[in-house]
Amino acid sequence: MSNTKVLPLLDAGDAVAACCPPLTERPFTAEEAETAARMFKALGDPVRLRLFSAVASHEGGEACVCDISDVGVSQPTVSHHLKKLKEAGLLSSERRGTWVYYRVEPSVLAAMGKLLTITPAAA
Amino acid sequence: MSNTKVLPLLDAGDAVAACCPPLTERPFTAEEAETAARMFKALGDPVRLRLFSAVASHEGGEACVCDISDVGVSQPTVSHHLKKLKEAGLLSSERRGTWVYYRVEPSVLAAMGKLLTITPAAA
Repeated sequence: MSNTKVLPLLDAGDAVAACCPPLTERPFTAEEAETAARMFKALGDPVRLRLFSAVASHEGGEACVCDISDVGVSQPTVSHHLKKLKEAGLLSSERRGTWVYYRVEPSVLAAMGKLLTITPAAA
Repeated sequence: MSNTKVLPLLDAGDAVAACCPPLTERPFTAEEAETAARMFKALGDPVRLRLFSAVASHEGGEACVCDISDVGVSQPTVSHHLKKLKEAGLLSSERRGTWVYYRVEPSVLAAMGKLLTITPAAA
Protein backbone atom coordinates (compact mmCIF):
# COMPACT_ATOMS: atom_id res chain seq x y z
CA MET A 1 0.00 0.00 0.00
CA SER A 2 1.36 3.39 -0.88
CA ASN A 3 -1.14 5.89 0.46
CA THR A 4 1.60 8.47 0.90
CA LYS A 5 1.22 9.66 -2.71
CA VAL A 6 -2.43 10.66 -2.59
CA LEU A 7 -2.15 14.41 -2.11
CA PRO A 8 -0.27 15.41 -5.30
CA LEU A 9 -3.21 14.25 -7.45
CA LEU A 10 -5.56 17.00 -6.43
CA ASP A 11 -2.67 19.43 -6.41
CA ALA A 12 -2.03 18.78 -10.10
CA GLY A 13 -5.59 19.71 -11.02
CA ASP A 14 -5.61 22.74 -8.80
CA ALA A 15 -2.24 23.80 -10.19
CA VAL A 16 -3.52 23.93 -13.76
CA ALA A 17 -6.80 25.53 -12.77
CA ALA A 18 -4.89 28.26 -10.97
CA CYS A 19 -1.77 28.53 -13.05
CA CYS A 20 -2.29 29.64 -16.56
CA PRO A 21 -3.86 32.34 -18.68
CA PRO A 22 -5.07 31.60 -22.23
CA LEU A 23 -2.11 30.71 -24.46
CA THR A 24 -2.91 33.70 -26.66
CA GLU A 25 -2.86 36.25 -23.81
CA ARG A 26 0.87 36.55 -23.03
CA PRO A 27 4.00 34.36 -23.20
CA PHE A 28 3.94 31.65 -20.55
CA THR A 29 6.57 31.69 -17.83
CA ALA A 30 8.76 28.61 -17.43
CA GLU A 31 6.76 27.55 -14.39
CA GLU A 32 3.38 27.92 -16.09
CA ALA A 33 4.66 25.98 -19.09
CA GLU A 34 5.88 23.12 -16.88
CA THR A 35 2.47 22.80 -15.23
CA ALA A 36 0.40 22.99 -18.40
CA ALA A 37 2.73 20.84 -20.54
CA ARG A 38 2.31 17.99 -18.04
CA MET A 39 -1.41 17.85 -18.78
CA PHE A 40 -1.05 18.11 -22.53
CA LYS A 41 1.64 15.42 -22.51
CA ALA A 42 -0.67 13.06 -20.61
CA LEU A 43 -3.21 13.39 -23.46
CA GLY A 44 -0.50 13.17 -26.12
CA ASP A 45 -0.63 9.40 -26.44
CA PRO A 46 -3.36 7.80 -28.60
CA VAL A 47 -4.06 4.88 -26.24
CA ARG A 48 -4.17 7.16 -23.21
CA LEU A 49 -6.47 9.55 -25.03
CA ARG A 50 -8.86 6.71 -25.93
CA LEU A 51 -8.91 5.52 -22.34
CA PHE A 52 -9.47 9.04 -21.10
CA SER A 53 -12.43 9.55 -23.43
CA ALA A 54 -13.75 6.11 -22.42
CA VAL A 55 -13.75 7.17 -18.76
CA ALA A 56 -14.97 10.69 -19.48
CA SER A 57 -17.89 9.52 -21.58
CA HIS A 58 -18.86 6.56 -19.39
CA GLU A 59 -22.15 6.66 -17.51
CA GLY A 60 -21.83 8.99 -14.55
CA GLY A 61 -18.43 10.23 -15.73
CA GLU A 62 -16.58 7.36 -14.08
CA ALA A 63 -15.40 3.87 -14.96
CA CYS A 64 -13.27 1.01 -13.69
CA VAL A 65 -10.74 -0.98 -15.69
CA CYS A 66 -13.43 -3.63 -16.06
CA ASP A 67 -15.58 -1.16 -18.04
CA ILE A 68 -12.98 -0.08 -20.59
CA SER A 69 -11.10 -3.11 -21.82
CA ASP A 70 -11.96 -2.70 -25.50
CA VAL A 71 -9.14 -0.48 -26.75
CA GLY A 72 -6.95 -3.38 -27.83
CA VAL A 73 -4.37 -3.34 -25.05
CA SER A 74 -3.95 -5.63 -22.02
CA GLN A 75 -5.54 -4.83 -18.68
CA PRO A 76 -2.14 -4.10 -17.04
CA THR A 77 -1.48 -1.61 -19.85
CA VAL A 78 -4.88 -0.01 -19.27
CA SER A 79 -4.07 0.27 -15.56
CA HIS A 80 -0.66 1.76 -16.34
CA HIS A 81 -2.15 4.47 -18.56
CA LEU A 82 -4.93 5.27 -16.10
CA LYS A 83 -2.26 5.71 -13.42
CA LYS A 84 -0.40 8.15 -15.68
CA LEU A 85 -3.58 10.16 -16.25
CA LYS A 86 -4.14 10.20 -12.51
CA GLU A 87 -0.59 11.38 -11.84
CA ALA A 88 -1.16 14.20 -14.31
CA GLY A 89 -4.24 15.25 -12.33
CA LEU A 90 -6.69 14.46 -15.15
CA LEU A 91 -8.40 11.61 -13.31
CA SER A 92 -9.13 10.93 -9.68
CA SER A 93 -9.71 7.44 -8.35
CA GLU A 94 -11.54 5.63 -5.60
CA ARG A 95 -11.42 1.97 -4.63
CA ARG A 96 -14.79 0.25 -4.16
CA GLY A 97 -14.54 -3.42 -3.33
CA THR A 98 -12.50 -5.21 -5.97
CA TRP A 99 -12.22 -2.35 -8.44
CA VAL A 100 -10.70 1.08 -8.60
CA TYR A 101 -13.04 3.59 -10.20
CA TYR A 102 -11.64 6.49 -12.20
CA ARG A 103 -13.39 9.79 -12.69
CA VAL A 104 -12.59 12.84 -14.82
CA GLU A 105 -11.71 16.03 -13.03
CA PRO A 106 -14.06 18.57 -14.67
CA SER A 107 -12.09 21.48 -13.19
CA VAL A 108 -8.97 20.31 -15.01
CA LEU A 109 -10.75 19.88 -18.32
CA ALA A 110 -12.19 23.36 -17.89
CA ALA A 111 -8.76 24.79 -17.08
CA MET A 112 -7.22 23.18 -20.16
CA GLY A 113 -10.09 24.48 -22.25
CA LYS A 114 -9.43 27.96 -20.91
CA LEU A 115 -5.81 27.74 -22.06
CA LEU A 116 -7.03 27.21 -25.59
CA THR A 117 -9.40 30.17 -25.56
CA ILE A 118 -8.61 32.70 -28.22
CA THR A 119 -8.31 36.19 -26.74
CA PRO A 120 -9.23 39.22 -28.88
CA ALA A 121 -5.57 40.27 -29.27
CA ALA A 122 -4.76 37.13 -31.22
CA ALA A 123 -7.95 36.82 -33.23
CA MET B 1 14.31 23.11 -50.83
CA SER B 2 11.58 20.71 -49.82
CA ASN B 3 8.36 22.31 -50.97
CA THR B 4 6.82 18.88 -51.42
CA LYS B 5 5.81 18.75 -47.75
CA VAL B 6 3.66 21.89 -47.66
CA LEU B 7 0.19 20.36 -47.96
CA PRO B 8 0.09 18.20 -44.79
CA LEU B 9 0.31 21.30 -42.60
CA LEU B 10 -3.14 22.61 -43.38
CA ASP B 11 -4.42 19.04 -43.45
CA ALA B 12 -3.39 18.57 -39.83
CA GLY B 13 -5.46 21.53 -38.68
CA ASP B 14 -8.42 20.53 -40.79
CA ALA B 15 -8.13 16.96 -39.55
CA VAL B 16 -8.52 17.97 -35.91
CA ALA B 17 -11.23 20.51 -36.65
CA ALA B 18 -13.18 17.82 -38.46
CA CYS B 19 -12.23 14.73 -36.54
CA CYS B 20 -13.26 14.69 -32.97
CA PRO B 21 -16.22 15.10 -30.65
CA PRO B 22 -15.76 16.35 -27.08
CA LEU B 23 -13.76 13.82 -25.05
CA THR B 24 -16.72 13.43 -22.70
CA GLU B 25 -19.23 12.59 -25.45
CA ARG B 26 -18.24 9.03 -26.42
CA PRO B 27 -15.08 6.89 -26.50
CA PHE B 28 -12.70 8.00 -29.24
CA THR B 29 -11.97 5.63 -32.10
CA ALA B 30 -8.34 4.69 -32.72
CA GLU B 31 -8.21 7.06 -35.69
CA GLU B 32 -9.66 10.01 -33.79
CA ALA B 33 -7.24 9.40 -30.94
CA GLU B 34 -4.26 9.35 -33.33
CA THR B 35 -5.24 12.71 -34.79
CA ALA B 36 -5.99 14.46 -31.51
CA ALA B 37 -3.04 12.97 -29.59
CA ARG B 38 -0.67 14.47 -32.16
CA MET B 39 -1.81 17.97 -31.22
CA PHE B 40 -1.74 17.40 -27.48
CA LYS B 41 1.72 15.85 -27.76
CA ALA B 42 3.00 18.91 -29.61
CA LEU B 43 1.96 21.06 -26.63
CA GLY B 44 3.26 18.51 -24.12
CA ASP B 45 6.75 19.97 -23.95
CA PRO B 46 7.39 23.02 -21.71
CA VAL B 47 9.74 24.80 -24.13
CA ARG B 48 7.42 24.18 -27.05
CA LEU B 49 4.46 25.42 -25.04
CA ARG B 50 6.31 28.63 -24.10
CA LEU B 51 7.22 29.23 -27.74
CA PHE B 52 3.67 28.54 -28.81
CA SER B 53 2.28 31.05 -26.31
CA ALA B 54 4.97 33.54 -27.38
CA VAL B 55 3.79 33.30 -30.99
CA ALA B 56 0.10 33.16 -30.08
CA SER B 57 0.29 36.24 -27.86
CA HIS B 58 2.58 38.26 -30.12
CA GLU B 59 1.23 41.37 -31.81
CA GLY B 60 -1.01 40.35 -34.69
CA GLY B 61 -0.89 36.71 -33.65
CA GLU B 62 2.35 36.05 -35.51
CA ALA B 63 6.07 36.16 -34.82
CA CYS B 64 9.43 35.23 -36.31
CA VAL B 65 12.29 33.49 -34.53
CA CYS B 66 13.83 36.94 -34.10
CA ASP B 67 10.86 38.00 -31.93
CA ILE B 68 10.92 35.09 -29.48
CA SER B 69 14.48 34.40 -28.47
CA ASP B 70 13.99 34.90 -24.71
CA VAL B 71 12.98 31.43 -23.55
CA GLY B 72 16.55 30.39 -22.71
CA VAL B 73 17.25 28.06 -25.62
CA SER B 74 19.37 28.59 -28.74
CA GLN B 75 17.89 29.91 -31.97
CA PRO B 76 18.34 26.54 -33.75
CA THR B 77 16.39 24.92 -30.88
CA VAL B 78 13.66 27.56 -31.23
CA SER B 79 13.48 26.83 -34.96
CA HIS B 80 13.35 23.09 -34.31
CA HIS B 81 10.41 23.42 -31.93
CA LEU B 82 8.53 25.84 -34.20
CA LYS B 83 8.93 23.28 -36.99
CA LYS B 84 7.43 20.59 -34.75
CA LEU B 85 4.47 22.82 -33.93
CA LYS B 86 4.02 23.48 -37.63
CA GLU B 87 4.14 19.76 -38.45
CA ALA B 88 1.44 19.19 -35.83
CA GLY B 89 -0.75 21.77 -37.61
CA LEU B 90 -0.72 24.24 -34.70
CA LEU B 91 1.23 26.91 -36.55
CA SER B 92 1.41 27.97 -40.15
CA SER B 93 4.40 29.80 -41.59
CA GLU B 94 5.29 32.25 -44.32
CA ARG B 95 8.71 33.45 -45.44
CA ARG B 96 9.09 37.23 -45.77
CA GLY B 97 12.57 38.34 -46.78
CA THR B 98 15.10 36.97 -44.31
CA TRP B 99 12.66 35.63 -41.76
CA VAL B 100 9.99 32.97 -41.54
CA TYR B 101 6.90 34.21 -39.72
CA TYR B 102 4.81 31.81 -37.67
CA ARG B 103 1.13 32.24 -36.98
CA VAL B 104 -1.31 30.34 -34.77
CA GLU B 105 -4.08 28.44 -36.47
CA PRO B 106 -7.20 29.67 -34.62
CA SER B 107 -9.30 26.85 -36.10
CA VAL B 108 -7.00 24.27 -34.51
CA LEU B 109 -7.06 25.97 -31.10
CA ALA B 110 -10.84 26.11 -31.34
CA ALA B 111 -11.01 22.42 -32.28
CA MET B 112 -8.79 21.43 -29.36
CA GLY B 113 -10.88 23.60 -27.06
CA LYS B 114 -13.98 21.77 -28.31
CA LEU B 115 -12.42 18.43 -27.36
CA LEU B 116 -12.18 19.63 -23.78
CA THR B 117 -15.77 20.80 -23.59
CA ILE B 118 -17.73 19.07 -20.87
CA THR B 119 -20.94 17.63 -22.23
CA PRO B 120 -23.96 17.34 -19.92
CA ALA B 121 -23.66 13.52 -19.68
CA ALA B 122 -20.30 13.80 -17.93
CA ALA B 123 -21.02 16.82 -15.76
